This record gives sequence, structure tokens and C-alpha cells, in this order.
Amino acid sequence: MIVDNALYHRGKRVPLGDGDDQSLGSARVPCDPGDFQWIGIHDPSPDELDRIARTFDLHPLAVEDAGDSHQRPKLERYGDTLFLVLKTLWYVDEEDAVETGEINMFVGHDFVVTVRHGQGIDLGASRRDLEHRAKVLEHGPMAVLYAICDRVVDEYERVGEALEEDVDEVEESVFSPARTDDSSRIYVLKREIAEVRRAVMPLREPMRKFAMGVDERITPETATYFRDVADHLQRVSEVIDNLDVLLSTAFDAHLARISVQQNEDMRKISAGAALVVVPTLIAGIYGMNFDHMPELHWAFGYPFALLLMVGVSAGLFAWFKKSGWL
Amino acid sequence: MIVDNALYHRGKRVPLGDGDDQSLGSARVPCDPGDFQWIGIHDPSPDELDRIARTFDLHPLAVEDAGDSHQRPKLERYGDTLFLVLKTLWYVDEEDAVETGEINMFVGHDFVVTVRHGQGIDLGASRRDLEHRAKVLEHGPMAVLYAICDRVVDEYERVGEALEEDVDEVEESVFSPARTDDSSRIYVLKREIAEVRRAVMPLREPMRKFAMGVDERITPETATYFRDVADHLQRVSEVIDNLDVLLSTAFDAHLARISVQQNEDMRKISAGAALVVVPTLIAGIYGMNFDHMPELHWAFGYPFALLLMVGVSAGLFAWFKKSGWL
Amino acid sequence: MIVDNALYHRGKRVPLGDGDDQSLGSARVPCDPGDFQWIGIHDPSPDELDRIARTFDLHPLAVEDAGDSHQRPKLERYGDTLFLVLKTLWYVDEEDAVETGEINMFVGHDFVVTVRHGQGIDLGASRRDLEHRAKVLEHGPMAVLYAICDRVVDEYERVGEALEEDVDEVEESVFSPARTDDSSRIYVLKREIAEVRRAVMPLREPMRKFAMGVDERITPETATYFRDVADHLQRVSEVIDNLDVLLSTAFDAHLARISVQQNEDMRKISAGAALVVVPTLIAGIYGMNFDHMPELHWAFGYPFALLLMVGVSAGLFAWFKKSGWL
Amino acid sequence: MIVDNALYHRGKRVPLGDGDDQSLGSARVPCDPGDFQWIGIHDPSPDELDRIARTFDLHPLAVEDAGDSHQRPKLERYGDTLFLVLKTLWYVDEEDAVETGEINMFVGHDFVVTVRHGQGIDLGASRRDLEHRAKVLEHGPMAVLYAICDRVVDEYERVGEALEEDVDEVEESVFSPARTDDSSRIYVLKREIAEVRRAVMPLREPMRKFAMGVDERITPETATYFRDVADHLQRVSEVIDNLDVLLSTAFDAHLARISVQQNEDMRKISAGAALVVVPTLIAGIYGMNFDHMPELHWAFGYPFALLLMVGVSAGLFAWFKKSGWL
Amino acid sequence: MIVDNALYHRGKRVPLGDGDDQSLGSARVPCDPGDFQWIGIHDPSPDELDRIARTFDLHPLAVEDAGDSHQRPKLERYGDTLFLVLKTLWYVDEEDAVETGEINMFVGHDFVVTVRHGQGIDLGASRRDLEHRAKVLEHGPMAVLYAICDRVVDEYERVGEALEEDVDEVEESVFSPARTDDSSRIYVLKREIAEVRRAVMPLREPMRKFAMGVDERITPETATYFRDVADHLQRVSEVIDNLDVLLSTAFDAHLARISVQQNEDMRKISAGAALVVVPTLIAGIYGMNFDHMPELHWAFGYPFALLLMVGVSAGLFAWFKKSGWL
Repeated sequence: MIVDNALYHRGKRVPLGDGDDQSLGSARVPCDPGDFQWIGIHDPSPDELDRIARTFDLHPLAVEDAGDSHQRPKLERYGDTLFLVLKTLWYVDEEDAVETGEINMFVGHDFVVTVRHGQGIDLGASRRDLEHRAKVLEHGPMAVLYAICDRVVDEYERVGEALEEDVDEVEESVFSPARTDDSSRIYVLKREIAEVRRAVMPLREPMRKFAMGVDERITPETATYFRDVADHLQRVSEVIDNLDVLLSTAFDAHLARISVQQNEDMRKISAGAALVVVPTLIAGIYGMNFDHMPELHWAFGYPFALLLMVGVSAGLFAWFKKSGWL
Repeated sequence: MIVDNALYHRGKRVPLGDGDDQSLGSARVPCDPGDFQWIGIHDPSPDELDRIARTFDLHPLAVEDAGDSHQRPKLERYGDTLFLVLKTLWYVDEEDAVETGEINMFVGHDFVVTVRHGQGIDLGASRRDLEHRAKVLEHGPMAVLYAICDRVVDEYERVGEALEEDVDEVEESVFSPARTDDSSRIYVLKREIAEVRRAVMPLREPMRKFAMGVDERITPETATYFRDVADHLQRVSEVIDNLDVLLSTAFDAHLARISVQQNEDMRKISAGAALVVVPTLIAGIYGMNFDHMPELHWAFGYPFALLLMVGVSAGLFAWFKKSGWL
Repeated sequence: MIVDNALYHRGKRVPLGDGDDQSLGSARVPCDPGDFQWIGIHDPSPDELDRIARTFDLHPLAVEDAGDSHQRPKLERYGDTLFLVLKTLWYVDEEDAVETGEINMFVGHDFVVTVRHGQGIDLGASRRDLEHRAKVLEHGPMAVLYAICDRVVDEYERVGEALEEDVDEVEESVFSPARTDDSSRIYVLKREIAEVRRAVMPLREPMRKFAMGVDERITPETATYFRDVADHLQRVSEVIDNLDVLLSTAFDAHLARISVQQNEDMRKISAGAALVVVPTLIAGIYGMNFDHMPELHWAFGYPFALLLMVGVSAGLFAWFKKSGWL
Repeated sequence: MIVDNALYHRGKRVPLGDGDDQSLGSARVPCDPGDFQWIGIHDPSPDELDRIARTFDLHPLAVEDAGDSHQRPKLERYGDTLFLVLKTLWYVDEEDAVETGEINMFVGHDFVVTVRHGQGIDLGASRRDLEHRAKVLEHGPMAVLYAICDRVVDEYERVGEALEEDVDEVEESVFSPARTDDSSRIYVLKREIAEVRRAVMPLREPMRKFAMGVDERITPETATYFRDVADHLQRVSEVIDNLDVLLSTAFDAHLARISVQQNEDMRKISAGAALVVVPTLIAGIYGMNFDHMPELHWAFGYPFALLLMVGVSAGLFAWFKKSGWL
Repeated sequence: MIVDNALYHRGKRVPLGDGDDQSLGSARVPCDPGDFQWIGIHDPSPDELDRIARTFDLHPLAVEDAGDSHQRPKLERYGDTLFLVLKTLWYVDEEDAVETGEINMFVGHDFVVTVRHGQGIDLGASRRDLEHRAKVLEHGPMAVLYAICDRVVDEYERVGEALEEDVDEVEESVFSPARTDDSSRIYVLKREIAEVRRAVMPLREPMRKFAMGVDERITPETATYFRDVADHLQRVSEVIDNLDVLLSTAFDAHLARISVQQNEDMRKISAGAALVVVPTLIAGIYGMNFDHMPELHWAFGYPFALLLMVGVSAGLFAWFKKSGWL
């Protein structure tokens, strides 16, 4: 679906029809030098993509990639057009889960085509933000590219923070005295961290390239801004790596905890068994059928035997308590 | 066995005898500039290979490699002839197993020789596909090389997806409450992933070389297509690496699960034992032979003792239930 | 809060108002060539930062970073101004914990702005130290940069030594015969080591750059001093890496210890049980109701039975002691 | 011991005395351009090495290395003479063990000196092979170098295959239901793999150098052959790495198996115990001394009690069987 | 303490006062071109270092390092003077421990200053050795540098061999049937290996630099000798890495062994328990109070019951023996 389509002339928006117009994007708008057109699409049909590809003369391999939502982040150059694939990430609080989407961008000299798959980053909001900053928009398509990358990476940082909180919770649970089965929680977190890593890691190279001004459209000033994005990416990736290592360590500690609890249980059980087994022996003794067993004829033989059982058990109980077995 | 043999003149097929013709491949067909001959062989006998080697003047070391089906993927250049070894992979659903085959390709200026070992990719189908796209075939032998690499790597991606499903199943099994011995399943999957990795990893370098146009026959346009193959390879290799890490984490979780179950079993057993041992103590007490044991002479002494046993056991049962031991 | 502000003329301090003066830093002091102004700020308000940014013409991206206390160490250059982010670390003995703060420095040709977040290194003390060494201060802003880096890295080394002591303690605890749950201690230490690593590792590159004289303001002599700082950083990072590996090994040993203790406990328990169960069998035997059991009619049958029980238990006890089960 | 010594003139052998001649190697044979002398020594005495070193003007450091059989594979150049150290490996079936030897080669413009330590590769056979291929020998000393490297690396591949079989056996043993202590077998295999790695890895660099024609005596044609050797080495090293990873995974699976078996045993034992303990309780009940216990006076009270015991045990047995505990 | 001080003129020693002379080293001895002075110091006081630093114009940062005995190996150049820090290692048989010391060397055009901390390498012996080889000493200060590096690295190799023996012992202990707690032994060895690694690894870079003739005072001939030292270092580092990996594998095997033994013990204990519990049941049965129990009235009822108990136990014993539980 074509979501928005506008011409930017000296940083000002010139609307090009509304979202319902099916002919949107089927014609290239002639622009003055420095002007550019920005078309935003969401979950496009093959037809729509095709039409836009013809309009802007996009390379078929890139269009094929843009139509598929399971790409890895990458930057490629087809002639004068840059093709950037970004993974979007966001954290859904209700489910404690990281979700992923994808943005594909075609950046030419006088146009930007953004293709979004799935939910996540609200590109419309990014566009409205930019439209309020005419000075930035004047820098042309690269400014749009920067604005979107910046937005996406900011979201990565939020995801990183949410995961840090999750890891803190796991940590607390592992070291709490309660018996918790943390292994599945750790597994899920590790899986999410792997997801984040797959979005973040491959993006570092493109951002580094932009920061070094690999494209002639990147001015030194713009490069500074991309360097900032690259730096944030680096920060996210270090946070993520650190969380991964912490989780592994927490998992090991979890294993150690299970063993220690097993041992404690075994000792408790054994101590408990002793409290029953020893009186059973005493009962067995006074159940013997010898002719001459003086205790059997005592008036208080029976209470004495019961007291003996209780006394021995109490003594054992005290001893086990003292030595930490109970 | 020589499977097919044809001359391609301006992208059109010119048949050169049928598959039964034993003389096939024993003579080089003179071609116009831009034409090329494509011979396909399957599990060749040393004789066949020898004949073809003499016809196309192939290097003996490459021919030796082509006759052996346990090569690693590689690209080598002998004079003007490129020699590429590819591992083919496919997933057999019935056995949940990855199988491997091998394709060796000799690519000269005016010929392609494909040598296939084992089952897998249907090169005949690839050839028929290509023959319908005369425009592609016009690019000559490098187009054939690209088409086969593209086909093989597409199959890798399918294998990757199948393995992802297998890993999802293992994951579910590990975290299901049922007692499952997942370690052998994980082992088999790890072994298959290693197999895939051995096919995928060494192929990245040759594809990268083609993408950078290392051979003078690779036009910038062709290089773009090889870049696409290289990108898919990269994707497969990331999927595979990710699965490997997930499996390791799942295995660790499996270990933790076993320990937790061991602990639960031990506690259940102990609780069960208590339900028998405590009544035994009571029975032992009333089996004692003291002269003065008032309960023994009660009319309802016996039912009282039985009730006492049942009552104590019921109490213990309730207590164990509440504290999670049963 | 602006903490201090002074002009350094030929290595001598020329005060520029006191700390309460809210106009501090709002004007640039004209200096002779070679002179420079040094403003120290602590946990600045956005306003203060803004004022100073305007005064010294600092880049907005760097100012944004300087206002945030969760940066990673890095060196960036905006025009003529270097921007260095340092993590400060210090060890709090009472809590056996490593705490972190942050210093941001802007170093221009004739000014230094230091922005400190959190506690830690006392920059005022560093400044006073430097003011006593006019010869050093004559080297200008780079001398201030060096002095602070040197101070921060010295503190890293102290933290490294404190962690070495902590690891020694953990090691002792792991291998002591006492039952200690070392896994949480090891986890905390690993977490702190990761913290230190995140401060130390990214700083190596900037220091290496200074040591190689990447900036035209760095004389070969100054570079030698930065090389010394880089060497100390290297040393800290090796100490830290080594501690991390030692902790992992100690954790593994801890796991092995738990298993061994579990085994010892199980054997002790079993031996203990045997001392009760065997006499119970004897009691059971003499509790049988056969008509003809000669022992039952012996005058000393009962003491004999008791002695038999004690004797058998004593024999078992001796045997278990000898074979190491008790 | 000097094993063989010959002059090769246009690829033809010209014998230089027999093996008993103690003066062998003490004189350099004048040769036509293109001719070369090849001396083979086995476990040389210091004297022999010394004599040969003087004759061929070998560098003392290389001679020192050649006299010692604990070198690591390496290629060095002393003036015009190449010095190559190779580890030889072979698999001894009877002991399922990998054994190692060493070959040192000095290759000058008109001589080859091969020094062999230990058993293993039969250099005499290699020499006789080569002598039948005069065309190869005509290429001079580099052909000898190639022939020996090729032979040694072929043997590596055989060792790799033997180890693959061993790993398959271990794998089968780990996953067999039998209780096997596979950890020592895995340890020994890991140790052997490390041994192989230490022979293979350092040799890759010299072979790569030869393949790139680093020496002026290596023609492009010869380089092709060394590239083949380098490729085989690469294959062996991948096989070895793969086996190492598989063994680690198999070991982990072995650990999981032990835990699972421990659990199964514990459950079997507990079920078995229940079959004894519950009848004991019943016996205890009918051993009580109450005045009024109607069953005691039944004619068939005793058989009833026995049947009750058997019945309860049978019920438990069936229940345990059904729930998988027995 | 200044240990020795001499001038070397054409490779011959010219003594410069004896060791008690407190003025030693306070004056630079004028030398002919090619001559050099060598001062050896041991655990110097700050004063001594200071005096020597002034005499030979040593850089204050290097002098500071030389006074501290906790440096990491490194090579630095201050003007014309090389500053090399070496860790010395030696193995103390009595304690099965690796000890460390440190040598700092200042190498100028006409002087060598060696500063030794701790015990270890006897530099006096090295000096006397060298003094007997005037030809070597003629090469000047670089010859002294080489001689000491060679000596230190030889000692590393001896340490490596001693550690190999220790690892062999651990291995034997792990796989012996005896119950040994090898984890602490493995821990200590790992710690020592880390120590050795910290001495060996950072030294490789300086030796490589010398081997490539990075300094104009290194002739190609001298470089060959440093290449030999670098090669030995490489060998030591491979030995050390290999031992580390072996120890990790041995530790894993140790863990597996503990689990297996735990299982064996549990089975032994259970079998032992069965031998007592089953006769107890029999005794319980004949302790029941039924009116009609024919066995009770048999003349040989009691011996029959005892025989039954023994018989059942013997049967169980045989069965457990057969099935490997006892």
C-alpha cells in the first residue's frame, strides 16, 4: 500500500495526491535540482512494487529483495541508487518479547522510496518530524536516510534497555532462595538477544561507510551525523554482547544452584528418615520374644519405650539442626 | 555418464547427438565467437572424464579432483579455465536428514563441463530453464555458472529453513514437561549443521570473487548477480550459525531440566517412602511385648491403630502436596 | 555546576571568578598564543552545557553526548576540537564493589572543558597537582588531557588490583573444605569485570592514536607519555582478561566440588542407614514367633541380642571408616 | 645413518656408492647445471649431520633444528637454501593411535638433504617412485620437495579418515543403550586430534607460500602442484576441526546420558524398594499384639496375609511398569 | 645492587672496579667505536637506578618501569635506546610451581644496562658464557640482547616441558580408578599456564621485530638468530595452548567421572540395602501373630527361616554381581 507520496522543494512538502490514489508512484515528478520525491509504501503488493520499480528505474534484484521481508541488513549500490535494508526492532512489554520488522530504502539523487514490512517504527511520524525541520530536509535524500537510520537505532537502544531489565530480573530469580526453573526464561532471552544481534551487527558496516563518506552525496557534516548513528549502534552491540555473556554466567550459576539444592534436599530427606527409622529399631527391639526381658515387665515399660523413641528422635533432630542438615 | 551435450549459438540450443552416443564429448565442436558448448556428466567413469579432459585440454589436477566426490568447495583457475567445486545439499523430509552431493564445473571461453556426483540438484531442469531464457544464455558460459550457483544456493536456503523447523521442534521438546531424551536429536542436528557449514562457508570466497569481477569474463552486470548469490550465501551462513548457537543453548537447558527432574523425582520418592515408613513404625510400636500396653486390650484397639496409620499418612500426604514434594 | 574556571598563562593559573559566579563560562577569555582556559563542570544542567557550547563553539552532537552519563569511551574530532569520553572506575572497599562515573573532555587549541558525571576521580585535585607543575602546563591543553587520562588509568590499575584480591578470596573459598555457595560471588565478580572491560577496552584505541601522534598538537615527547598510558591500559586489560578466565575455571571447580560433596554425603548417609537397618533386621529375627528358637530361652538371650546388634553396627562402622564412607 | 645418496642427471639416477660407505656425503659431487644430488639420512648422529652441514654449507641454526626431533613444522630460508620441517603422521590400527615422526629437508640449487626422525613415511619408496618419473625429476630439487610434501599430506588424509571412523565409533557408543564410560576414549581422541592439528596447521603457511611461487625456483606449473597440496592440507584441517567439534558435542551428550541413566536407576531402585517395604508394613500390622484382631483367628488368615502382600506388590509392580519407573 | 660492570673492547672484558664500589655506574666510560659498557643490577634501589639513568641519559618513563617488578613484556624505543622488559620463568620441582622474575634491559649504541628483579635466570652466568665467545661479543650490545633473550626463552621451554609432565600426571590421576579430587590440581595448573602465557605471548612481537631487523643495529646475520628465538617462543606458546586445551578436556572428563562414580555408588548402596531389607520382610512375616501358621510349629522352622533369609540374600547378591550393580 502506498502510504504517502510527496515532493520536497527546498525542504518544503508539496503533496502529490492522497493515499487512496492508485496511480500514486506511477509517474516520476520532474523536480528542480535539489528537490526530491519521497514515496512511502507499506507491505506492498508485487504490482505496486513493480510500478514503482519501473518509475524509478530500480534494479530487479533490489526490488526482489524489497518485496521479501526476511532480508538481512545490508547496503548495496545499483548504479546511482543506494539500496539499504534495515531491521526494525521494538519491545512489546505485555509479552516481554522483541518483535521485528523491516524497512527497505531506495535512495536516488532525486527520490527516496521507503518500503516497510510489518509493524514497528512509524515512518509517517518520522516524515512529519522531518517536515518540521526544513533546514534538514534541504540536504536532500541523504537527510531522509539519516533520519530513518537514527530513528531505527534509537529504537534499538530502547530494546537494549528493556532487555537489560529482563536480564536483571532473571538474575534476581536465579539468586533468590525460591526454586525457580530459570532455564526456559534464559533460553528465550538468549534467543531474543540473537535476534537483536542479527539486526544490529550487519548494520554497522553500512553506517561506518556512511560515516566515512563513502558516497559523494555525503557531505563531511552529514558524515558526522552518521558517525553518531554508528557510535550508537556500537553501544547497542556492546550492551547486547554483555547481556549475552551475563546470561551465560547466570545460567551456569543456575546449574550450580540446582546441584546445591539437590544436595540440601538429600540431606533433609536423610535426616527426616533417621527420625523414623531409629524409633522403628527401638520398637523392633521391644518386639523381640526373649523370655527374659526385664523392661517388658516394668509397670512403666511402655511409656518408657515411647519416651525413649521420642527422646532419641529429638536428640537426632537437634543434632541435624545444628549441623545444618535440617 | 554423459547426460547432455549441446552447442549454444546466440543463446539457442543446437543439439549434438543423444545421450547414448558414446563418442559424445570426444570432439570439440568449433564455434563462432560467443557460442559455447555445454556437456553435462553424471558420476563419470575415469574413461569418460579422461576423454573430455583431452578434448577440452583440462588440467590433470582438476580432472583428478572432479573424479572424486569428497572435495571441499573451491574455485581454481588453470590457465583460461575456471574450475569450481560446489557441494549440493537437500533436505529429505522422510528422514529429517540433510543429504549432500557435488557438482564440479569447468568453465572455459567457449565451453562448460558440469560433472555431478550423487543425487540432488537436477541440472537437466536448470539447463531447460536456461534454454528458455535465450537472453541470459547469450552471456555465454558465465551465465551457466551463475544459473547453477543460484540454483544450488537457493537449495541451501530451503535446507536452512527445514533445519530451522527442526530446531523449533527440539526446542519445544526440551521445554515440554514430558521426559524426553533430546541429546541425541540435538547431536544429529549439530552434525547436520556442521555438514551445511562445510558446504556454505568455503563457497563464500569464490562468490565474493565473482561479485568483485575477478575474472575478465564477468561484466559489471553479471557481477551484480553474483553479488546477489553471495548475499544469499551470507544469509544462509548466518541462519546456520544462529541455529548452532540456539542448539547449544537448548542443550544446556536440557541438562538443567534433567537435573531439575532428578530433584523432583527424588522428592516424590522420599515423600512416597514416608507414607509407608511411618505406619511401619506405628505397627512396630503395637508389636512390642510390654505387659502393660492399655491400647492392646481396648475393644477397638486394632481399628484405632489402623486409623492412626491412615490418619498419619493422610496428614503427611497433605503436607507433601502443599509443599510441592508430591 | 561549574566547579572551576581559570586561564593558564605560561603554565601559571589566572583565576577567572569564583565557583558561585553564574556567568562563569559564558564568555571566552582572550588569550595570548599558548595560553588556554580550563573550565571544569560537574553534573551540568542542560542550560550550563548550552552556554558553554555556545561560548566554545562545540558541536551539538558532542554536547548531547556530554550531557548524557551513559556513553562508551571514545575519541572524536569535531573540526579542531577533540572530544574524549572516559569512564572512571573506583573500588569501594566497604561493598567490595566497582563503581563507575564518566568524564567528558573537549580539547581545543586554547581551551579545555571537562564535564564530570558521578563521583570518582577528583578532577580538582588533578588540577591542583598540575598547577604545581608549570613546566607541564606550558605544553597546553594536551598536557591537561594527558594528566587526566593518566590519573584515570592509574585508578583502573588500583581497581584491577582490588579485583585480583577478590578473585584470590573466591579461589580460597572454592577450595576450602567448608560448604560455600560461591556461585553468586563469582557471578558478581564476573559482572564487575565486564564493567571494567567496558571502560578499558574502547579506550585503548584513542590512547594508541595519541601515542602515535595522530593529532598535530601532540609532540613526539607528549606521544611518549601517551604511549606509557596506553601500556598501562594494556596491562589492566590483560589483568582483567586473566581474572575472567580464572573465575571461569574457579566456577568449574566449584561445580566439581558440589558433585564430589554430593557423593560424599550420599555415602555417609548410606553408611549411617546401614548402622540402623542391620540391627533392625536382628530385632526382627528375634521377634519371630517360632516355637523352637533356643536363644529366646537363654538366660542372657536378650543381652546377647543387644550385644549382637551393637557388635554388628560397630563392625560396620569400622569398615565404613576404613573404606572412607564415614 | 646415511640411507641413500645419488646424483640425478637429466632426471636419471647416478649412484654415489652404497649405504655402508662412511665417506658418503662428505664430498660435494660436481654437477652440470640442472643436475642435483639427493642425500637421505635417518636419525643421524651429530657427526654425520656435521659432516653434511660442512659439505653443503648449511646454516648452523638449521642444522641444530634438524638434529632435534621435536620441531614444529616451518619453512625457513638461509641464503639460497630452503629449510623445511614436516611432521609425519600415520595411524596404527592395532592401537587405534596416531604416531608422529619428522622430516627435515634442506633444498639448495643443486642438492636435497632429507633428514628423517622416527618411523612413518618411507622416503626410500618415494625416491624410487620419483626415479621412475624422469620427467618430474628433471624439474630438479623442487620436484623432490613437492613429491615428499604430497606424500606426507596424503598420509595426513588417511589419518583423518581413520579418525573419522574412530569418532563414528565413539558416537555409536555414546548413544547406545549400554552403559559405557566414553570419556576416556573421547579424551584420547581429542589428544590425537590436537597432535594432528599441530602437524597440519603450521604447514599451511609454507604450502601457501610455495603455491604463490614465493621462491624463484618455483615455476607457475610447479606452483599449481603445490596449490593442490595446500588444498589437501586445507581439507584435512577442516576434517580435523569438524571432528573436534563433534567430539565436544558427543561428550556433552555423554554427560546428559549419564544424568538420564542416574535418574532412571534412581527410579528403578525406588520402585524396587516399594515392592519390599509395603509388604513389610503389612507384616508389621499382623505382628501387632492387639487382643482383638479378627484376621489372626481366621483359618486362612496367614495365606490371606501372604496373598495380600503379593497382591499389593503385584499391583505396585504393574503401576510402576505402566508409568515407566521399572 | 650493582652486580657487575665492565667494558668490552673488541669482545674482551675490561673490568671497571669491583661490586662493592658504590661509585660504580656513576660515570660513563669513554669507549672506542664498537666498544660498549655492560652494567648488571639486581633489585636496585631508587638511588642506584637514578644514578645510572643520569649516567646513560635514560628516559624517565623507562626508568620508572625498570624500578617496578610488575611490568608486562614489551619493547620500547626512547631515542636511540631500546628498552626491553622480559619475564623470567623457572620451575621449582619441590613445589611443582612456576615462579616468575623480571629482566629489564636498556640497550644503547655503546652500553647495556640489565636490571633484574627476583630470582631466576643467572645473568652472571650468561655474562661469563658470553665473555668466552669474544667473536659474539664483538657484535656489540645487540649480541648481549640476543644472548639474554635466548637464555630466557630456553628456560621457557624447560618450564613448558615440566608443565607437560604435570599435565600427564593429572591425566593419569583423572583416569585412574581411584577417587581423586583433581579439580584443584587442574585449577593450579591452569593458573600457572596463564602465568606462562602472560610471559610468552607479549614477547613474540618484539622478537618478531628483531627477526625482521627493525633496528638498524641488527645485521641480517643477527636477525637470523632472533628468528630462531622467535621460533622457539612460538613453539612454547603452542605447547602452552595445547596444554590448556588438554586440561580443559581432562577437567570435563573428571566431571563425567564423578557422575559415573556417583551412579555406581548409588547402585552399590541400593544392592547392599536390598540384602538387608528383604530378610527383614521375611522376619516380619514370621513375626506375625496368626493362629494358624504351620511353619512356626515345625521343629526346624527357625533354621528354615534363617536359611531362607540367607538364601534369598545370596540369590540377590549373585544377581546384583551379575548385572554389575555390586
